[in-house]
Amino acid sequence: MNYKIGESQEVSKTISETDVYLFAGISGDFNPVHVNRVEAEGSLFGKQIAHGILVGGLLSNVIGMKLPGPGTIYMEQDMKFLKPVYIGDTVSARVEITEVLNREKHVLRLRTQIKNQNGDIVIDGFAIVKAPMRGDDC
Amino acid sequence: MNYKIGESQEVSKTISETDVYLFAGISGDFNPVHVNRVEAEGSLFGKQIAHGILVGGLLSNVIGMKLPGPGTIYMEQDMKFLKPVYIGDTVSARVEITEVLNREKHVLRLRTQIKNQNGDIVIDGFAIVKAPMRGDDC
Amino acid sequence: MNYKIGESQEVSKTISETDVYLFAGISGDFNPVHVNRVEAEGSLFGKQIAHGILVGGLLSNVIGMKLPGPGTIYMEQDMKFLKPVYIGDTVSARVEITEVLNREKHVLRLRTQIKNQNGDIVIDGFAIVKAPMRGDDC
Amino acid sequence: MNYKIGESQEVSKTISETDVYLFAGISGDFNPVHVNRVEAEGSLFGKQIAHGILVGGLLSNVIGMKLPGPGTIYMEQDMKFLKPVYIGDTVSARVEITEVLNREKHVLRLRTQIKNQNGDIVIDGFAIVKAPMRGDDC
Repeated sequence: MNYKIGESQEVSKTISETDVYLFAGISGDFNPVHVNRVEAEGSLFGKQIAHGILVGGLLSNVIGMKLPGPGTIYMEQDMKFLKPVYIGDTVSARVEITEVLNREKHVLRLRTQIKNQNGDIVIDGFAIVKAPMRGDDC
Repeated sequence: MNYKIGESQEVSKTISETDVYLFAGISGDFNPVHVNRVEAEGSLFGKQIAHGILVGGLLSNVIGMKLPGPGTIYMEQDMKFLKPVYIGDTVSARVEITEVLNREKHVLRLRTQIKNQNGDIVIDGFAIVKAPMRGDDC
Repeated sequence: MNYKIGESQEVSKTISETDVYLFAGISGDFNPVHVNRVEAEGSLFGKQIAHGILVGGLLSNVIGMKLPGPGTIYMEQDMKFLKPVYIGDTVSARVEITEVLNREKHVLRLRTQIKNQNGDIVIDGFAIVKAPMRGDDC
Repeated sequence: MNYKIGESQEVSKTISETDVYLFAGISGDFNPVHVNRVEAEGSLFGKQIAHGILVGGLLSNVIGMKLPGPGTIYMEQDMKFLKPVYIGDTVSARVEITEVLNREKHVLRLRTQIKNQNGDIVIDGFAIVKAPMRGDDC
């Protein structure tokens, strides 16, 4: 098995109003803190925030595209939502292999973490995946 | 505190190709099993599947809109992806209060479960939320 | 005033699943007859239908783009929803000038009608608009 | 029949540029006041406005989801467009039962009104619906 503890990959994106409105449409989550500027400004957040699970979707990007990448079977994702992400924030999702749970079946535990442009951790957690075979030349 | 163990709410939706393509655009997760029909048909899934986190977004709908509803602070979401959800599947997301973690601060543990049209559990897990105040008349 | 009673214009479109899912996202109307295939099949409609107001949006197209066209001020729209429009139906929206309500201010009453591919009227009603100036050469 | 005159429900949302662009795509209404910033700034509105029917879609949300809610048959919608809604405006759509037109068949007349964040009525009108049965325990 060619996966090594400590390997990591990341992807980053500025979360736009479009992202939030489209995700509201996909999920049906029209909570006023996401889609109502007036109520959001009167809330404890002070302005419109992105859906936590929307932001967590970037982890799906890293896991499905980079590490372990195409062929991965996503078994579990845990996310602790530590800070709000505002429309316009730029976040980086980072995935790191922290443990091999089953060497034969390539089951890995990954640390999954998302930071905003200030370096604050906004989402922390872990994933468990069944990784695809990886040749020596990868 | 007016939240009771065993209270539950749900929401359901048919997951469309549109949902999968929009979520691919939001997350950047262009894994072939989601957006490449040819490769998906050659994969172990046999056809295009929805992103697990997209499907999990329906939990955000129930939690943000119904139980506990607007004003809830989402602290953690754990999801075990047990079965694939295909484009065209109709899923129901159900949230149930299973434990009061902090009575004063309304911190609740919720069971979060999504089933497909055949009654198979496709996602199982839990959420932790800080619920808003709830009056006696609700 | 160069608008004549009896003038008409139309536009047509096949209503896709994408239209219905995007409009559900814009409006927040996640009624199961629109976004839940299983429940829609068990409903009196028998399958998923488009939101009536989505279909009525084609009238906005004809009025804003063709008759009277850019510069029109939309004052009122009345729509009677006579038959369901299913995903995949091809509808034609037709607008016809039926009355001049105010000659000096170019206020017109329009018949607004939408038919499906079988020629059934699915939406009938009227609009009142303030039309822009129109030269003799139009 | 368990519906009472005076019952009301509402929903609110900030109308985003995304909403306007998606609705332009669905309806084909590319009137410059909606999708052309330069021309909109030179128009009598002074900036880009939302399509009236897009905004009216929120009434479909309230009627289909809340009052009377799932199972309702939408028979007619009349909308008078009284003031423009600009991109970024936060609107509240309110539906109130004003008359029982047919007690046996649950046909209701509803006042349908949308206000902006300043309390101005932007759309006023009525709907006629056939409401679903409603149990005593609701």
